[in-house]
Order: sequence, then structure tokens, then C-alpha cells
Amino acid sequence: MIVVMKDETPPSEIERIINELQGWDVVPEKLVGKNKIVIGLVGETAAIKSEYIQQISPFIEETIRVKKPYKRASLEFRYGEYSTVTVVTPNGKVDFGKDSPLVVIAGPCSVENEEMIVETAQVVKAAGAKFLRGGAYKPRTSPYAFQGHGESALDLLAKAREVTGLGIITEVMDTADVDKIANVADILQVGARNMQNFSLLKKVGATGKPVLLKRGLSATIEEWLMAAEYILAAGNPNVILCERGIRSFDRQHTRNVLDLSVVPVLRTLTHLPITIDPSHATGKSQYVPTMTMGAIAAGTDSLMIEVHPNPAKALSDGPQSLKPQEFQELMLEVKPLAQFFGRGTKSLQSQTLSQFVTKDYSKV
Amino acid sequence: MIVVMKDETPPSEIERIINELQGWDVVPEKLVGKNKIVIGLVGETAAIKSEYIQQISPFIEETIRVKKPYKRASLEFRYGEYSTVTVVTPNGKVDFGKDSPLVVIAGPCSVENEEMIVETAQVVKAAGAKFLRGGAYKPRTSPYAFQGHGESALDLLAKAREVTGLGIITEVMDTADVDKIANVADILQVGARNMQNFSLLKKVGATGKPVLLKRGLSATIEEWLMAAEYILAAGNPNVILCERGIRSFDRQHTRNVLDLSVVPVLRTLTHLPITIDPSHATGKSQYVPTMTMGAIAAGTDSLMIEVHPNPAKALSDGPQSLKPQEFQELMLEVKPLAQFFGRGTKSLQSQTLSQFVTKDYSKV
Amino acid sequence: MIVVMKDETPPSEIERIINELQGWDVVPEKLVGKNKIVIGLVGETAAIKSEYIQQISPFIEETIRVKKPYKRASLEFRYGEYSTVTVVTPNGKVDFGKDSPLVVIAGPCSVENEEMIVETAQVVKAAGAKFLRGGAYKPRTSPYAFQGHGESALDLLAKAREVTGLGIITEVMDTADVDKIANVADILQVGARNMQNFSLLKKVGATGKPVLLKRGLSATIEEWLMAAEYILAAGNPNVILCERGIRSFDRQHTRNVLDLSVVPVLRTLTHLPITIDPSHATGKSQYVPTMTMGAIAAGTDSLMIEVHPNPAKALSDGPQSLKPQEFQELMLEVKPLAQFFGRGTKSLQSQTLSQFVTKDYSKV
Amino acid sequence: MIVVMKDETPPSEIERIINELQGWDVVPEKLVGKNKIVIGLVGETAAIKSEYIQQISPFIEETIRVKKPYKRASLEFRYGEYSTVTVVTPNGKVDFGKDSPLVVIAGPCSVENEEMIVETAQVVKAAGAKFLRGGAYKPRTSPYAFQGHGESALDLLAKAREVTGLGIITEVMDTADVDKIANVADILQVGARNMQNFSLLKKVGATGKPVLLKRGLSATIEEWLMAAEYILAAGNPNVILCERGIRSFDRQHTRNVLDLSVVPVLRTLTHLPITIDPSHATGKSQYVPTMTMGAIAAGTDSLMIEVHPNPAKALSDGPQSLKPQEFQELMLEVKPLAQFFGRGTKSLQSQTLSQFVTKDYSKV
Repeated sequence: MIVVMKDETPPSEIERIINELQGWDVVPEKLVGKNKIVIGLVGETAAIKSEYIQQISPFIEETIRVKKPYKRASLEFRYGEYSTVTVVTPNGKVDFGKDSPLVVIAGPCSVENEEMIVETAQVVKAAGAKFLRGGAYKPRTSPYAFQGHGESALDLLAKAREVTGLGIITEVMDTADVDKIANVADILQVGARNMQNFSLLKKVGATGKPVLLKRGLSATIEEWLMAAEYILAAGNPNVILCERGIRSFDRQHTRNVLDLSVVPVLRTLTHLPITIDPSHATGKSQYVPTMTMGAIAAGTDSLMIEVHPNPAKALSDGPQSLKPQEFQELMLEVKPLAQFFGRGTKSLQSQTLSQFVTKDYSKV
Repeated sequence: MIVVMKDETPPSEIERIINELQGWDVVPEKLVGKNKIVIGLVGETAAIKSEYIQQISPFIEETIRVKKPYKRASLEFRYGEYSTVTVVTPNGKVDFGKDSPLVVIAGPCSVENEEMIVETAQVVKAAGAKFLRGGAYKPRTSPYAFQGHGESALDLLAKAREVTGLGIITEVMDTADVDKIANVADILQVGARNMQNFSLLKKVGATGKPVLLKRGLSATIEEWLMAAEYILAAGNPNVILCERGIRSFDRQHTRNVLDLSVVPVLRTLTHLPITIDPSHATGKSQYVPTMTMGAIAAGTDSLMIEVHPNPAKALSDGPQSLKPQEFQELMLEVKPLAQFFGRGTKSLQSQTLSQFVTKDYSKV
Repeated sequence: MIVVMKDETPPSEIERIINELQGWDVVPEKLVGKNKIVIGLVGETAAIKSEYIQQISPFIEETIRVKKPYKRASLEFRYGEYSTVTVVTPNGKVDFGKDSPLVVIAGPCSVENEEMIVETAQVVKAAGAKFLRGGAYKPRTSPYAFQGHGESALDLLAKAREVTGLGIITEVMDTADVDKIANVADILQVGARNMQNFSLLKKVGATGKPVLLKRGLSATIEEWLMAAEYILAAGNPNVILCERGIRSFDRQHTRNVLDLSVVPVLRTLTHLPITIDPSHATGKSQYVPTMTMGAIAAGTDSLMIEVHPNPAKALSDGPQSLKPQEFQELMLEVKPLAQFFGRGTKSLQSQTLSQFVTKDYSKV
Repeated sequence: MIVVMKDETPPSEIERIINELQGWDVVPEKLVGKNKIVIGLVGETAAIKSEYIQQISPFIEETIRVKKPYKRASLEFRYGEYSTVTVVTPNGKVDFGKDSPLVVIAGPCSVENEEMIVETAQVVKAAGAKFLRGGAYKPRTSPYAFQGHGESALDLLAKAREVTGLGIITEVMDTADVDKIANVADILQVGARNMQNFSLLKKVGATGKPVLLKRGLSATIEEWLMAAEYILAAGNPNVILCERGIRSFDRQHTRNVLDLSVVPVLRTLTHLPITIDPSHATGKSQYVPTMTMGAIAAGTDSLMIEVHPNPAKALSDGPQSLKPQEFQELMLEVKPLAQFFGRGTKSLQSQTLSQFVTKDYSKV
């Protein structure tokens, strides 16, 4: 249920209304939008008649019931206004949202060593990325596969952040690791396999840090939004949804099926910003550029692309990683397409790439 | 198996080689590409050693085995050259293919009456479509639902063709109807539910008419290409593949999941041209424009979009049909995006729309 | 909508009511159940008020609206009474239904030659099967794979029928073949790939012959029942539903996933009898016996099991075919389990098997 | 890789071989089977030639490479012998395994209060169950739904255990809760949503406690066995696999599709015991009895069935819970069927039920 305030409402009156509502067995939240201030109510609202609320104050314009099971994540809860998730990085604030420029996150699947992660960070920054991705703790199907370098990899990510000023995004798999990862990361990633790890969702919600929430392998859109709701309900409004392909009956050519229709569908359901991960979706680097272009045309707010200096020797997910030069070339196509759709930005303008492209990565 | 000819090979020598190969328990087919002439061999090629074939003529450059189960549909069978399916319409030839301009097919789900189909044809033509779609025989889940007007609807399609010069595409569901539909249609459509109706595939293969083959609801890419192979093996090289969404576990918001990654995947597997149908994929007109843009960015050769003068009163599939004005607006976005990707064409330039947009379709 | 008659209603009154209802823009059908006679109405019943119908005759007990989209296939349409499909074979009538003994259908995927089909028929008959399955027209993924011997195979099936007295079930794929297949077959099979080949459904519906309707690869239960409705609506009440496994994301170990829960689900939705095909569901003969036992425990009315004298040399689907001896051994387990569930029958008692088991099929 | 010892090998020689192998960069594990003692080797075995190992001792019969990616979970790793997981409960040891009697686990979705859990425990014990299930920490799609009573519910489970002597199984969702749950539970349950929560798998592996590992919503069989391998690799051999239905395209009538073919498939791949959960698979209590019977016939080692004193008022999953009397009636059918398949046990014999059935649970 939301309570929409009239434009001229004095701040003190809003506080008074919130105070009064706190006695009603609901949790009121003030949401300041561009056009309207609304007070969101979550809890046992079924029994509350609209008339009762209207009587609290003449400054109340209207009350609207949110019928969706995901309350805070719903577009109605913000009175139809899309939210912007702002992440502070050493290089400045970066906004994720429908009305912001396209944001590119790039980097390797796993942090392997200092040279590798720092150089990759420099390359992707030069090509226009704003965030470096890199796994310290890796969810691997086999217990005998490389599990990530853990804590020491966090230090390397911190180093890469320091050198390049890029924001850092890395995956958290265990509630016990949330705090130490939150010390380094600018965005916490919850992976597809943990989308319904509710303990983890509550814990990352409690940090207040921006969270990139990947869609589960066979999660419905409603389940995905309910998972986001766990984070929002824990008091953390900074959630970014990430589509990374869903499981299908045909896994011969692509690892998953990239469901780009989530972009227009989510726009009708939620105010949260959207990222597309074409690397995990296809599982093959050769298909990444095409699906990147498709994602931009479908209106994504952000992209998450795997880049590795030497995919053939990657400790994980090599086949889906672009080589640095391939990423640079892709970014040269991404930029004008983003501009075509009004999502361009100076940041996407490649800086002088020459200093990086001279290195022969095929020999790394 | 393919036999690649040297550039300077005289035509008579190619004929001689084909004649000789006909004695080998294989079916030889001459394929004239832009760069090379190759002779494709289908049949019991396993036992044939390359050396034997090389000995037939010094003009043979090399022989290559096609390992894929779909021989004629495979990209190797054409020595890596993408094919163009040319359809002759009253308004002239239209090419479907990777190196041709984007082709738009539009029209209603079903042919309802003369006024409706002729006017829709005029509208979609004016907006830039080259083909009119419209069902005469409709595959409907329920036996009590409208099944299409059948033969009389074919006459109306012929009328719309005569009036507008657009090519006609319509679905064929029964081997018994193939001939009469082929008399009217420029392209025969095989629907998703009939993708593995092998009797029908053989029959439409025998006509030689261009065939648009929709992917089955849960057909793998390999099964789809094997279905195309049925048509090709019947002697009909004019096959266009159409992705229309696959079935998934989440059917709450979209009818199917549009698998745009088929575009880059098919490019590595087959030479056949590709169409995307965002209308059936999403099942909701509000998502069609976005997925149309995504499809173009992913590199489709063609689009198939449902347009109905009054979707609310459509006899079938109303919710997924664009209104004429919505289609016109979409085409105004399609055109520059196609040009962005080098797939523009004068034909996509809207003609004077004013004569149509004045009509108030909401009252039709 | 159904009209339930009082017990004492004279037949002439029922006729009178039907006559009167024929003037109402609906199709009335008299259905004589064990406990009740009801008149089913299909058509534009929405506008007909119950009171109007009640006024036709004091012998009308009540009228009930069938809310399901599949009218004739719904359990309500028969006032909750399960139907029995009786098939006349040379050896006598065989009943398929919830209250009848378990019926076993067995035989090879394809009819390969006379000796093979006749001997297999003798073996499966001796082991307790009532029907011989065998494909004359085969739906094959590849156009280059064996497509069935067609018409000549029908003659061989007729021969096997003559020799053994078994009923014959064989697949029909093309509307053009329905009549000639109906001349030989006691049950027409519509395969999974043709479940929504609506032209074919109408045509087999028109024959009046018993039809075994396989569930499509990814057909929902509702779509399956709507496909059955096509046949019923064409005037043919003799439909048997056959679950043969559905497509899933995991195809490494079984070809499909056998959905045994359809048995209890279908019991709540439809009156039609049920067959389970564990051979196509698993795709591997080693899993067939276990799933056969599971199917019986889940309450299936019938089983369809592939048996081939020499699976290693089968022209199609060898890996999923039981050897004759394996089938005999399975039937020795099937019989007591069927009896355990009150579905036993003398027919399941194996006849003297010795005459067959002496033959060494591994050398066929 | 496994090293199979000759029958007469002295124990000291086996110790000597293990000691020697510890120097080889592999982890040797002694596995004492009924027929053979084998030494399993996990690690970098690719480089180890069989001849090298053979030379260690003349008591080595043979060495066999395990090709499956799940080493310890594979049937080969135990030289083809199925393992038995023995759980010690106050009422005595209970064995889960292919050669043991059928074990029934029953109880409510959530622990709601003391009276409810203790009485349910008494009822299910009387009917023949050996374990009580009951959730203290609940994975719920919505953050606003009942999340389980947590620690206080653990106390109630301990009380029910004390009163009835039943073993306790309850779900663990967070690595932080593993120890306190392990203090009360006889079996730790890892739920479907956490099947690939690798941190949790490692932690429950480290406890050594029996673990019931549910199959993920869309986990392949190989992924499921790899998840089990995580637990086994952590040194815990006591893993029971639980099939609870997989996600499909048709969710109208059943929540999931119960994949009973996993039973025969797992028998060919792994030595681990199997449980079937028909309650979560179907999501509707009316289908539970039928699927229970199907599961027994398919050969499951164990069943997990939801029972609630008053499903209509259950705090979670009411629709899929049997009422006590329904469970008692089902057990009266389960017992003879288990005996039919040689999986009977005195424990399945219902004790005097009269003391419980007199209570009118519909009024609880």
C-alpha cells in the first residue's frame, strides 16, 4: 500500500503521518521521487481501509494498494518511477537506471594473480568499463575444480581498484564472508545458484551495499523479484537485477538461453535497474558480441562481460571470455549503439587504447 | 561430402564429373556460389574415399566431409557461403539473406474479411513491409475456436496481393491443402506445431516454393535444421528459418521465450536465412517493439510482425497484434536501426502514411 | 453443459428432449453411463440459462456447466464416470479403462519384414500382450533415416494379426494415409510430434476407430486434452491417452522424463483411459522394466512396450527395445503386480513360453 | 581411481599400501565392502600409471580408473557395491540402502508448536515412520511469509525425539546454523534451493552427520551427484539423495514433475541411497498416495511424506500435507507393496493406531 502526498505537503506533516502510521502494525517508508513523495506501507495492510488513512491528513492525495506479492520491488510502490542505484567508486559516482547511460562491467571470471587482474582492469577501464568483475570465491560444479583464491583474491581486487579507480563487483557465497567482501567490493554479487539462498539475501540486505542479483537457472520472474524483495525488505534499496540466461532443453550450442524479453517485462513490473550478462548466458565468447548488441537494443541499463587476458589458460570459464582486443573492438560498437538509443556517455568513449593493445595477449 | 571445383573449371567438365558421380550411389548437386562452384554429395558417402573422387578430374580442388547430420542445410555444404532466398512478388524480387536488406513481413493472425485484409495490406505496405501474412487455415488449441476461413480466405489473400503487390505468406497445415495454397502464396509457412510433421515437410519440399519453417515449441536447433533438411532433401532449396519463441517454465508474462541467440548460433551452422517473430514469442503487443529492436541488433534477416486493424476484436491472437499506428511507429524506429547495422533499404522508407493514419482504427 | 436425467426417465422422453435441444444452437449427445443417462451439450451454452432447460421436462434432474475448455473429454461431461474404450480384435474384445484389467501393447518400433513381425507378435502374445505395435510409417528426425516400409508394412501387420489374432496399433502421420491404415489397424496411433496436427486429429476423429493419442514432447496436460477434444468433437469417443515422456533440461541419461503423475491428475480431469509408454520415455531398455512397474503402481490402464527380436540390429529405436526374453521376464513380474492392484487378468497369464524361448534371438 | 585388494590381503599390508600411496599426491581412502576391500584414490591420478601401483604390492588385484567426474559418489568407486547409510536414532539404528527395508520419513512442513509436533510425531511413528521431518528454518519465496520458528523449533524437535524415539530430520539453510542444528537433528537436510550452495555443502560435509540432499529444481543428475561429491569430499560418506520433482513447462496441476526414472538411472551411476518426496513433487496431497506407490514400485529406498494435523491451517505447504488419517491409510497400502518388492519390515507394521485416530484432527 502506498500513500501519495500532495505536492505542497510540508516535511513536518510527512513526518507526523509516518509517526502516526507506525502505530498501525505496518512499516512506513518515505520514498522521495522526482515528481512525488510517497509513503510505502508494508505489513498487514489488508485490514486497513483507505478511508482511515485519508483521515490522517488533508495532505494525502490518494492511497493505492500494491497487489503484487513483491511490494517494495514493484513499480507501483514507487508510484511508477524507476529507481537509480548509485554506486560510489574511486573514479566517481556511477548510476544504474533506466534514465542513465549504459554501464559496462567487465573482467575475468576469477581473480588469478595480481598482474592478471590489474592489467585486465586497466584494459577494460581504457575501453570504457566502469566496474571490474572478478571472482574471489567461485561456485564450481565440482569440488575438485578451482574454488577461487578467496581472501587473498580480495586483496588483489582492492589493489586493482586502487590502481584503476574502477568499482569492484565480486560474488559472495557464504553469509560468513559477507562482511569481509563488503569491505572491498563496491557491489556484492549474488550468483544464480544462490538466488534463493534466503539467509544470504537477508545478510547482503543488511549491509546496505549495492547488490547485483543474478536470476536463478530456472527462476521465474516473480521468484526473482521476490528474491530482490528479501534484500529490499532488509532495508537495502540498492538492488540491480541481472539476467544471465535460463536453463532450457537445448544446451548443445549455448549454455543457457538469454531471455532478453525480461527487459520490457521487468519495466512493467519493477523500478529496479537491469543488467544483462551475455557471457554466462551463451557460454561461448563468439556469441557474446551479438548478444551484447541485442541486449542494448532491448534496453538494458548495464552489461556484464567476461574478459580474460588469455582465455585458453583461464582457471575458470575460459570459453566464454573475450580477449582484451575482442572486448575493445566490441566496445567500439557498443558506444555508437548506446548513443543511438540515447544511452551514450563520455565514459564509454574509449580512452587512448594504444598503450594496451600493443601488448600481445596471445602470448601471456 | 562436397567436391570443391577449381576456379577455371569448364562447365562441361563439371557436368562430366556430376555424371560420373551419379554412378556412385550418391546424389550430386551443383551449387554455384559467389566464389566457388561446389558439387554436394548426399547419400552413402562414408565408404567413398576422398582419393577416389580426386582421381575423377584434375579440376577438383578438394573434397570435404560434412559431419553434421543436416547435410544440405549445413554451412559447409555451401563451402561457407550464406544463401539468399529470392521470392518473386508482384512488386518485384525480394531477397532474404545475411547480405540483403532487412525484410519485414506483417499482417493479421487470420484473414477475417476482405476489407480488413486489404486495408491491413495497404497499411503495412505503406509502412515498409514487403510481405503480407494472414492465416487461412489456423492451428488452434481448441476445436471450438475459430479455425480460419480456409479456401475463401485464400481468395481474399489473392485479392490483397493484387491490390498491393505484396508477397503473400500463409500457413499450410495439411498435405491435402498444399497445392491450393501454393497457388496463392508466395511463401508457404510451416507452423511450430507442424515442424516435425514430416509428411508435410516432404510435400512443401516437393513444391519448390519458398518455405518459412517455424521452430517447434521445444525443438532443439539440431531438430529444426533436420526439419529444414527434409525440405531441402525434397529438392527445395528455398527455406527460411523462423524463431518464434520456445517453451519455458515461466509463462506468466510472455507466452514463450524468444531465443535471439539462435541468430549467431545459426550463422555458424547453416547458410539458411533467418526470420524472427516477436509477436508469437512474447504473445503481448506491448513487448513486440522492444524485441523487434533486439532482433535487428542480433542480426536477423527478416521480421514477422502481427498487425491487426482492431486487436480487441480479432478472431485470433488479438493480444499480440500491433495496431496499424503502432506498427507505423515501430517501422519508423526499425528503419534507422537497420541502417545502423547496414541492413537498410529504400523499401523500408515509409511511403506517404497520411492517407492511412487518418482512419480511426479504434472504431473499426 | 450437461443435462442429467432422472433414473425413471422413459427413452422416448429423452429423445424428445434431445430433439428440442437441437433447436437451441447446441449439439446434444446422449451419454449412457452405468448410473445415469446424461445429455451433453456443446456449443454456445453460455447464453442458455439452466432454468430454460429445466422447463423442457420434469424428468430433468439437474443441469451442470462444464467449465473446462475440453468439454467432451472432461470427467464432468460424463457425470464423473470413467469411460471404457472397447477394441474388437480377432481374439475378442479388449477393454481399456480404469475398471478394466491392465492391457499390454508390445512390439517393435518398425515393421521390418514378415518373419520378424510375425514372430515378435507370437512372442508378445504368448507373454500376455493383447496388441501388437509396429510402425509402417515412421516419424524420423532425419530425412535420411529409415522412414518405414509404408504400405507393404501394413500388409505384414495384417498378416501378423491374422496369424496371432492380436489387435494392431500403428502410427498415422498423414491425412492422406488415414483410410488405408484404418483398414488394417485396430487402433490408430497419433504420435507425439503430431499431437497438435489438427488436420490429422480431425481426420482420425472422423474414422470412428479407436485412437491412441500420444502426449506431445512439451505439451501441457490441458493442450493434450484439447487435442483429444478434437477427436471427440469429430464424433469419435474412442480415445486413449498415452504418456511417453516429456522433454526436460536433462537428456543425458533418459531421452525424456516419464511424467507418471499424469495418471492421478488425469483421473481428476478426464474420463479417458490412459496408457504409459516407458520405452520412448526412457529411451533405454535397461530402465523399461522399472518404469513399467512404477506405471502400474501409479494406476495406468495400459502399457506400450517396445520389443524387438534383435535390438542391436533394429532399423529404428533399438536401444529402447526389450529382447523377447526380457519382455517375457518382465511380464512375469507385471502379472502379479497388476493383480496386487486389482488389475489382473487371465490374459496376462503367460501361455506356454517354451516354444519361443528356445529360439536364440541373439543370433537373429 | 580404485585399487582392488585380493581377498586374502592382510590388514597390515593394506595399511602399508595406503601409507605408500599418501606420498603420491592423492588422497587414499579404505573402503570395506561386503565382497572386497578397495582403496579409493582421489586427486591427480591422471599421471599415475596402473603399472606403478601394481608394483607396490602383490596383493593388489587390479586398479580401475573412475571416469565419472563424481569420483566418491560413483558406483565404480565402491567397486559396484551399494552403500548403506546407517542413522542412529533413540529407537535404534535405521539403514537407508538398496538392500534395506523401505524407510518412511514423515511430518509437517514446519514445526508450529509443541503439541502439534509431538502429536504428529506420535501419529507417524504409530503408522510406521522411522523419522520425523519438521522445518525450523524455512526457505520461503516471500520474505513476508512465515520463516520458521528457528532455534525454538529445534527445541521442540528435540522434545518430539525424546517422547517418540524417532530420528529427526530438519533443513539447514545457513552455514552459521549448521552446528546448532546438528546438535538436534539425526539427519541434516539440504533443500532444493541450496543444492548448489557449495559453502553449505562443505560445512555439512565437515559435520559427518547423515545428510539428505534434495535435487535442485532444475538440476541435472550429474550436477546433483557433483553436489553430493562436495559432501563426500569433505569426509562425510553419509549422503542420501532425495528426488522432489523438477521444474517443467506445465505447472498447472502439479507443482513439479516427479522424475521417478532417477531411481533406475542412479542405480547405474552411484552407490548412494535414494529417497522420494512425493509431497513437494506434486504439491497436492490428493496425488501423494498414488505417487508414493509409484515410487515404491520404481524401487526407492525411502519416502519423505508431509503430514499435518490440520493442513487447512498449516503455516506452510498445507495443500500438499496429508491428514494423519490419510497417512495412516496410505501406510496400510505401503506396507504390503513394500513386502511385494521384498522391502518389507516389521517397523512398517502399524502399531495400535486406535489411540490416535480417535482424535478429531479436523478441529485442531
